[in-house]
Amino acid sequence: MLYGQIHLTLPPWIHDEVDATRVYADNESRIALAIDLSRRNVAHRSGGPFGAAVFNEAGRLIGIGVNRVVPSNCSIAHAEMMAVATCQQRMQRFRLNDGDGDGDGRIILATSSQPCAMCYGALIWAGIDELLIAARSDDVQTLAGFDEGPLPADWAGELEKRGIRVQRDLMRDHARDVLRDYGESGVVY
Amino acid sequence: MLYGQIHLTLPPWIHDEVDATRVYADNESRIALAIDLSRRNVAHRSGGPFGAAVFNEAGRLIGIGVNRVVPSNCSIAHAEMMAVATCQQRMQRFRLNDGDGDGDGRIILATSSQPCAMCYGALIWAGIDELLIAARSDDVQTLAGFDEGPLPADWAGELEKRGIRVQRDLMRDHARDVLRDYGESGVVY
Repeated sequence: MLYGQIHLTLPPWIHDEVDATRVYADNESRIALAIDLSRRNVAHRSGGPFGAAVFNEAGRLIGIGVNRVVPSNCSIAHAEMMAVATCQQRMQRFRLNDGDGDGDGRIILATSSQPCAMCYGALIWAGIDELLIAARSDDVQTLAGFDEGPLPADWAGELEKRGIRVQRDLMRDHARDVLRDYGESGVVY
Repeated sequence: MLYGQIHLTLPPWIHDEVDATRVYADNESRIALAIDLSRRNVAHRSGGPFGAAVFNEAGRLIGIGVNRVVPSNCSIAHAEMMAVATCQQRMQRFRLNDGDGDGDGRIILATSSQPCAMCYGALIWAGIDELLIAARSDDVQTLAGFDEGPLPADWAGELEKRGIRVQRDLMRDHARDVLRDYGESGVVY
């Protein structure tokens, strides 16, 4: 028999520990949340050391993601994928910035680490306007031991060409701390 | 409130119209199934003109996928993603070729069109050994109007470096027919 369903979930602690009513007014508070999610995900042993969050232009939190690959038995369950897909379920649209005049304005995705090759492509289809990144790809590989996969040579330029503004190295040291702690813990998630 | 779940489904016709007990002994029958899925998905209006299937070394069909972006309101629900993720759910492991000695041998993914930038990265993490492709990226863009996104310059070489053998242009004309019919139909899915 063929399986016809995929069911992915975020861990239950997100509902207890994330304030979904708060306004995240600046990029620092947005990237800080993504990094905080990555740290909590490791502490709860609910997945790998990666977190992501989606905001509308007013700074309202409209989507959240953490890595769920091992607990879900699913290689596509990266933090960025979980964040955009849960946000799309909430909005009931497959492109977040579809310009339907609902007042969301620009859509911003903050991620604790530079997106891997899969998430990189996924963000182009997801409909985001701005990508905020904390740790670099090198940090992920050297501190936590994860391969990030092959990207186009000018990966950031290719996003900018498609209207996605990229800001890098935001609170990079904080994100590196989480990756280092994870790498040194010996946990494999 | 934040959404904490993603639930993606394949359309019900796959259970009626795909013979999951048949052995797909050669690459031609494998790619023919992927193309057949792409055609049926358009005919049933259950998603875009893309199909994919996963086989073990013996040619047993162990995963199936069609594009479900519009009906699922989910930009990650491409055919290849659905195929590997449903297969991972069936196998209960996040890497399909994890070498656990279960007799599956090499894992083969057949897809009706060259993977887009997202699916390209996803296939590296999914654990496949062989990638069979029918239509080219150019065919997808010119005949059906879909952007495939930015890839590394030597995208096939990057897969081969990671142990994934790539075979292209298999029954390309058949896959092109489906894309052309879709493009001319004016349906947007």
